[in-house]
Amino acid sequence: MTAYVTHLESAIDGTHLEAGTIQTMHNDRPLWVRYDLDAVRDNMTKEMVQQRPATIWRYRELLPPENDASIVSLGEGMSPILQLTRLGQHLGLSDFWVKDESQLPTGTFKSRGLCMAVTMAHEFGIERVAIPTAGNAGGAMAAYAARAGMEAYVFMPADTPAINQYECAMAGAHVYLVNGLINDCGAFVKAGQADMGWFDVSTLKEPYRIEGKKTMGLELAEQFNWELPDVILYPTGGGTGLIGMWKAFNELREMGWLNSENMPRMVVCQSEGCAPMVRAFEQGERFADFFENAATIASGLRVPAAVGDFMIMDTVRESGGTAVAVEEARIREWMALAASLEGVSVGPEAATCVGAAEQLVADGWIKPDERVVFYNCGASQKYPHVMATELPLLEKGQAIDWSQFGR
Amino acid sequence: MTAYVTHLESAIDGTHLEAGTIQTMHNDRPLWVRYDLDAVRDNMTKEMVQQRPATIWRYRELLPPENDASIVSLGEGMSPILQLTRLGQHLGLSDFWVKDESQLPTGTFKSRGLCMAVTMAHEFGIERVAIPTAGNAGGAMAAYAARAGMEAYVFMPADTPAINQYECAMAGAHVYLVNGLINDCGAFVKAGQADMGWFDVSTLKEPYRIEGKKTMGLELAEQFNWELPDVILYPTGGGTGLIGMWKAFNELREMGWLNSENMPRMVVCQSEGCAPMVRAFEQGERFADFFENAATIASGLRVPAAVGDFMIMDTVRESGGTAVAVEEARIREWMALAASLEGVSVGPEAATCVGAAEQLVADGWIKPDERVVFYNCGASQKYPHVMATELPLLEKGQAIDWSQFGR
Repeated sequence: MTAYVTHLESAIDGTHLEAGTIQTMHNDRPLWVRYDLDAVRDNMTKEMVQQRPATIWRYRELLPPENDASIVSLGEGMSPILQLTRLGQHLGLSDFWVKDESQLPTGTFKSRGLCMAVTMAHEFGIERVAIPTAGNAGGAMAAYAARAGMEAYVFMPADTPAINQYECAMAGAHVYLVNGLINDCGAFVKAGQADMGWFDVSTLKEPYRIEGKKTMGLELAEQFNWELPDVILYPTGGGTGLIGMWKAFNELREMGWLNSENMPRMVVCQSEGCAPMVRAFEQGERFADFFENAATIASGLRVPAAVGDFMIMDTVRESGGTAVAVEEARIREWMALAASLEGVSVGPEAATCVGAAEQLVADGWIKPDERVVFYNCGASQKYPHVMATELPLLEKGQAIDWSQFGR
Repeated sequence: MTAYVTHLESAIDGTHLEAGTIQTMHNDRPLWVRYDLDAVRDNMTKEMVQQRPATIWRYRELLPPENDASIVSLGEGMSPILQLTRLGQHLGLSDFWVKDESQLPTGTFKSRGLCMAVTMAHEFGIERVAIPTAGNAGGAMAAYAARAGMEAYVFMPADTPAINQYECAMAGAHVYLVNGLINDCGAFVKAGQADMGWFDVSTLKEPYRIEGKKTMGLELAEQFNWELPDVILYPTGGGTGLIGMWKAFNELREMGWLNSENMPRMVVCQSEGCAPMVRAFEQGERFADFFENAATIASGLRVPAAVGDFMIMDTVRESGGTAVAVEEARIREWMALAASLEGVSVGPEAATCVGAAEQLVADGWIKPDERVVFYNCGASQKYPHVMATELPLLEKGQAIDWSQFGR
């Protein structure tokens, strides 16, 4: 098929750029991918979508590749939407849901964005990609690069969780640990660009990761029969998903696919250990200052400076949303709460959404009967150092006083 | 809806037992669930199935719960089927595929079986479940028990991978480590049964885990447009999936849903470190001796005695299959091969299938153009101790000789 992309558009000043060729940023700020939505509406129906396989590619006409042959897929999407009755009750919410992104390739929602970035790189004939990453993005990039037969380079802070390091190496990426932070890793990617000729797939430094993350919003709309929830709680690091979902909702609205005018209030959830977006929101700023001494066990939220800060702030404000920083010390508690009440493997990033829900219900900002959805962006299983706990040890054949057992 | 289950049937002697009530084993051997397949055929069509959500529940009429309200779900299935062109080429196969079970709740195919066991326990009003486990089954049981609001007890060898221990604890299960093997854990489950009144959901000790695993076969058939592949390579510990798939294929055949008479040759894949089924197959036995000193990094294959041994052997022989033990020392190499050539996070258990393919192609037992599928039963990310590797460390701002980089 042919893509319905018309052009790319600078998010900072609206300048149009040509699609169909390699683009990165404009004035050091991200680009939007724009579509001929009238043509999409004429050529794609809800019935068509519903009959296609349950992957992100069911929304093909709203996605950027020109040729189907470019698609690099590991079977990503669609992730389940699960009602959380018990956890909702605990929080004082009667209509509480999770979209469980742990059930994707490499166990996190990073697969959506990197699937699209690698697909488009593949379409443009790129054979070598690089990324600075402090968490799951590296594993997702390495996997999709391997699937495409591309060479991959990953630069990670030396204290990146071990599983993230190893999954990149297993997928054949060239992995370098850096005694520093993610911006120091970014410096290596920049420094090597001329000699190595690699394409940088950092968050929002190319236009297509947003389009991949957008599918979280498309799936949500379809799963709720084209009616959007009242509130979306989103664990926000670089914010690509928040931005991408808002874009998806607006595209669907423009296409007339939504059954209700109701648009969700978008909520940025961060840990107090790294809350640049919350601070900017509270100060009424559109651009966020660098967050010094960023420290949180939710490694995906350890993003002290986001190149899409203004896009995040615009989304939150346009939607009538808010931004919440939760207590770092309670992250593990919220993970355990979600897992023990509902069986969902909520990672530390998404645990901040549970904390934010608690706070926003208490404040009256969320009403008890509103439909609220949060995103579980990655499987807790990738964070053994966060889950670690001491367990009782029995000797084999040991006599047990069973009356000591149980709750 | 109403279930189409007619009765349970002893796998060892054909005795009929009543469905609709709690059952465990008969003469210490497993039970089959039997359906009125004529009635299923009259009430379920392929078109109906294809329009239902992409979970294992799309095959509702071939599954055991009497009431939909009993269903305990975390959005399990359907897992993607991915063609592996590059890995196939490396192995000398032109039509090679993986069914990627890593994209399920808790990251492994154990979710299928435990989803069904917990669903049926829930239907029968059971409020407390227990399991001995040396790997991923514990995490899956704990998650589904939490989702059902049941109390869960898990007994694991003290050397069970840390992630498996922690995921159970996070999901609120009472976890006990045992200084011994899985049979020592089983002894605790048995010893506590009278006092604790828990229901034992061990592999094949209740009838429904097979029905959950059966869905791997149903999905495969549907994904290949109701034509089965020539060969299925299956990483075999307790063997529930192998048995369950063969049952699924026979049910589909009896219903007339298969477009071809071709039934796959089922291949047991084990590590030489624990290969009781391979040994029994080679000796022409139907029952397998206990495998002494079982040791393999593929923790899910560390099953020295399987209660369903004769069902595994019957399946392999009926299907014209075989059984292969691969080199323990090469497991990590096969994981890396699959991950680096295809981006699939193949766990150590499934890596034995890559080794088996290599061997069976070399032997001429598999022809180069046959359609061959293997099952990736769990995400490599749950095995950091197997993936562990040393990586180069850079100091920030360090000058790099880029000509040293690359392959």
